[in-house]
Amino acid sequence: MVNLRPMGQPTVAAYTLTRLAQLGLDRVFGVPGDYAFPINDAAETVPGLSWVGCANELNAAYAADGYARIRGAAILSTTYGVGELSALNGVMGSNAHRLPVFHLTGKPSERIQKLGLLTHHNLGDTVYERFQPLSAAACCVQAVLTPANCVDELERVIREALRQSRPAYLVISEVQALLPVHGQPINGLPLQAIKRQHSVAEELDAAVAAILERLERAQRPVAMVTDLVRRYGLRRQAEAFIRKANLPTVFAPFDKGCLDESLPQVIGLYAGHESSSPAVRGLVEAADLLVDIGGQVAADLNTGGWTARIPSSRRVTVSDDWVRLGDKVFLHTALEDVLSALVEQVQPRSGDHGPRLELAPLVGRDGDALSSAAFTARLQRRLRAGDTLVIETGTCGLHLLPMLLPAGVDVELQGLWGSIGWATPACMGVAMAKTSGRAWLVSGDGAHQLTLNELAVMGRYGVKPVIFVLNNGLYGIEDVLSERGHRYDDLPPVRYHLLPEAFGCQGWLSEKVATVQELEAVLERIERHDGAAYIEVMIPNEESQPLPAATIDQSYKLKTPAVE
Amino acid sequence: MVNLRPMGQPTVAAYTLTRLAQLGLDRVFGVPGDYAFPINDAAETVPGLSWVGCANELNAAYAADGYARIRGAAILSTTYGVGELSALNGVMGSNAHRLPVFHLTGKPSERIQKLGLLTHHNLGDTVYERFQPLSAAACCVQAVLTPANCVDELERVIREALRQSRPAYLVISEVQALLPVHGQPINGLPLQAIKRQHSVAEELDAAVAAILERLERAQRPVAMVTDLVRRYGLRRQAEAFIRKANLPTVFAPFDKGCLDESLPQVIGLYAGHESSSPAVRGLVEAADLLVDIGGQVAADLNTGGWTARIPSSRRVTVSDDWVRLGDKVFLHTALEDVLSALVEQVQPRSGDHGPRLELAPLVGRDGDALSSAAFTARLQRRLRAGDTLVIETGTCGLHLLPMLLPAGVDVELQGLWGSIGWATPACMGVAMAKTSGRAWLVSGDGAHQLTLNELAVMGRYGVKPVIFVLNNGLYGIEDVLSERGHRYDDLPPVRYHLLPEAFGCQGWLSEKVATVQELEAVLERIERHDGAAYIEVMIPNEESQPLPAATIDQSYKLKTPAVE
Repeated sequence: MVNLRPMGQPTVAAYTLTRLAQLGLDRVFGVPGDYAFPINDAAETVPGLSWVGCANELNAAYAADGYARIRGAAILSTTYGVGELSALNGVMGSNAHRLPVFHLTGKPSERIQKLGLLTHHNLGDTVYERFQPLSAAACCVQAVLTPANCVDELERVIREALRQSRPAYLVISEVQALLPVHGQPINGLPLQAIKRQHSVAEELDAAVAAILERLERAQRPVAMVTDLVRRYGLRRQAEAFIRKANLPTVFAPFDKGCLDESLPQVIGLYAGHESSSPAVRGLVEAADLLVDIGGQVAADLNTGGWTARIPSSRRVTVSDDWVRLGDKVFLHTALEDVLSALVEQVQPRSGDHGPRLELAPLVGRDGDALSSAAFTARLQRRLRAGDTLVIETGTCGLHLLPMLLPAGVDVELQGLWGSIGWATPACMGVAMAKTSGRAWLVSGDGAHQLTLNELAVMGRYGVKPVIFVLNNGLYGIEDVLSERGHRYDDLPPVRYHLLPEAFGCQGWLSEKVATVQELEAVLERIERHDGAAYIEVMIPNEESQPLPAATIDQSYKLKTPAVE
Repeated sequence: MVNLRPMGQPTVAAYTLTRLAQLGLDRVFGVPGDYAFPINDAAETVPGLSWVGCANELNAAYAADGYARIRGAAILSTTYGVGELSALNGVMGSNAHRLPVFHLTGKPSERIQKLGLLTHHNLGDTVYERFQPLSAAACCVQAVLTPANCVDELERVIREALRQSRPAYLVISEVQALLPVHGQPINGLPLQAIKRQHSVAEELDAAVAAILERLERAQRPVAMVTDLVRRYGLRRQAEAFIRKANLPTVFAPFDKGCLDESLPQVIGLYAGHESSSPAVRGLVEAADLLVDIGGQVAADLNTGGWTARIPSSRRVTVSDDWVRLGDKVFLHTALEDVLSALVEQVQPRSGDHGPRLELAPLVGRDGDALSSAAFTARLQRRLRAGDTLVIETGTCGLHLLPMLLPAGVDVELQGLWGSIGWATPACMGVAMAKTSGRAWLVSGDGAHQLTLNELAVMGRYGVKPVIFVLNNGLYGIEDVLSERGHRYDDLPPVRYHLLPEAFGCQGWLSEKVATVQELEAVLERIERHDGAAYIEVMIPNEESQPLPAATIDQSYKLKTPAVE
């Protein structure tokens, strides 16, 4: 065992992990590897931390992403080159979704570098820093830690990652990692106690006054809340605002689950003009003011194909540290401070809120073949307060978005980055981060195949999610977005329900269901089952997608005239 | 279906794939995705090509790498952002191993870009080219293809990728991909007919004369051949040289399988002073000239921990397009031309060659528990001319390196880049590329778990490899390189032999063996079995590694004094 405190000072590796653990983090997700062994060692020995050995580095990055969604931050550990590059897509996704994941990587010792020796995990030359800019490109801040700079640099990196709510990249060479840090080690606060953004008082006051004034004048105001409020731990404050202001409130597809949908103010999903229900569309598009708390991402899949009809003149956007009101922009307005001031000062409005989300009807019965609608309606009725539902990108997500979440149920999805395969390891991270309630996962088979080797890891660590793999034998979303009938949308004939046994998962309930009756029976068994559940759900590919329509730009389908 | 030749001209996507197929390539490895659909479509419709839908993009990159090792080049197709970044580690490995993999990626249409619209697979901003420099960093050449530049750019990119024998990155936006190319489409030559490097006659003549003069003067010359000769398709020429010159010849660990080991000149593995057999070490280190054809990569794991004792004054290095002789460097000396001249002009030497590699002894019998030595000896006797053995990085590789390859048996491994998980998808690529002979794979469980979802893809496409997963329940190589007893080296208790059935693989022979008798029986059955075979081989972790010793720099284990 490596001594964590030679000379009474912690080593760089031990100090780094200790300092990050103080944020309230108790796991390190990763794959061990030479160059990073001192970091791996420290993850085993620093009090309060434990190592989670993932099936590969991309899975580890996804698991860290899921954990960060619940705990506010996460630690990811990979090795030099081969490890860190494999994680890159996952860390970039955490950046898109505003999650402070601390990505730690080892590198060859300075002894090797000074001697100009060649090492494996490189291209056969002496360019030792080839991979740093690539990994750093997914992060908002980076540092190469040494005994001399470690205490200071870590404070800077943590502050910046939390301020921007984006990943950070930390490199520690295999030899620096084992040397004692210089200077006075810092005992940091848990994440929840840290004020992450700071306002300039004049800008804050002016922004809040302007918002309140516009709100006062508005006849038909509507609110929108986005995921960003959760990333800064401000969900309760956002809900307090819409409750006190008593504003009809919508959310966009990417932001499903960021609000308690049992609040009377929450009227449902606004997915642009093309993909919203007529009632919600009517209310939002007729509004003379939309107060957008968090800032809707105006991307294709979040706006019904760029059909959101809310001109900027009728919109207030409260982003992380700036506010836009028409053509006016206020800077240095911390989201937390704006919300506090609004909650304190806003005048309640009276009147109805508009339509409500409703439980999906219980379509299908008995021996009927399963459909997405039959599945969704039954899943919905099994979710309980405190549960988190992780939804994979794809047609399964399209079907689940419109459903009413029971009170206290959260959803996590990856709408913007949309990297298929994310949800399976992310669900493991969510399950490990949660202190109560269950983690549920719904994935399509197309996405699940990318990362299903993480099931073995869930089994090993005794994680107990409830997993549904919707098996239709093809990439449903690609089939929707592209033309139908391409062989490249077909998938191998995996017998998913046999995987938990092959992966050595103990105590898992694993079944295949194809009818309404079978689904109902298995849901009943899951309710009474203490371990994990893994259900292969046979749902034939559905020709017409009910909601929302495929919203990608179709310009690639442009046909040029055929002459030959 | 998309029309491939509107206006009589092929589209950019169809032309690009047609032009690459002309090199002699018949597969496109990838994962389909929006932004890349026109490329996916073309892969289905361009004559002579077929799409291989891999389990994920890293696996696809590894599979392309394996295919390129047999065919000389490969095509990889991923989508924008999420797809290409997931493949990055794999493409970087192809760069380290000098494989021209053509990595094609889609991107959002210029319509979207001109309008400044936000898209998924990005960070919620209008930076559309964020990922290009990241993907390009793994490649030696790149181009963004349009109708106007496609014909010219492809010639430049192909020429450069083949000249350097490294990957190329090609980006085609979803809309440009469907427009007809300008100019006269080119009908290219197959790879084998292309002269990839060109010499300057004066430099070439001077280099060859200098090499021959040194060789003439040498009393105890030895040759070394490296993988680079295979990458340029020059293995037969290298073998012709050592046969005509009649030089005792060695290879380094990374280069296992680059020579026919049944040649009388081949004396075995030189893995530096510390990790070579006394006989080979004595011969190499006493040589007054080492003719190094290809240029040994002097990395840690290739030189017994930087202990190769061949001073540059006694070494001639013939690299891809330069020659070093002592302190003299000749440039523009195409490897092909140097080899041709040497074969023509070299004078044969007489005399013995030295020690020979021998078949490993048949240790173990009957009900004995399996050991690495017992496994290797029996595997070795089943390999046949025309077979390719793919060896994963790790302890399994350390055990297999010293074995004598039967005549005509090739080996592929990834010693320099050393990204665990590579071998399983690479073996699929190898199997698809081979026109005769079998593909064999030996992987440890630690590495196999990273990419085992590719088994489903092998099953789907009817690939018939013979796969051995050596199961000792931990990352053996990490256990060797680091201290023993770390929990992070433990693995989930996967029941590997159950995987083929769960993955829907038809006609696979799948077994678990733990004794010598069981192994012998299953090897016998494999010989008569027409389909794929997947064998879980239980080999307890072996405390002492016989050959070569762990060679990584140990400086990270430096202990600083413990006071506390």
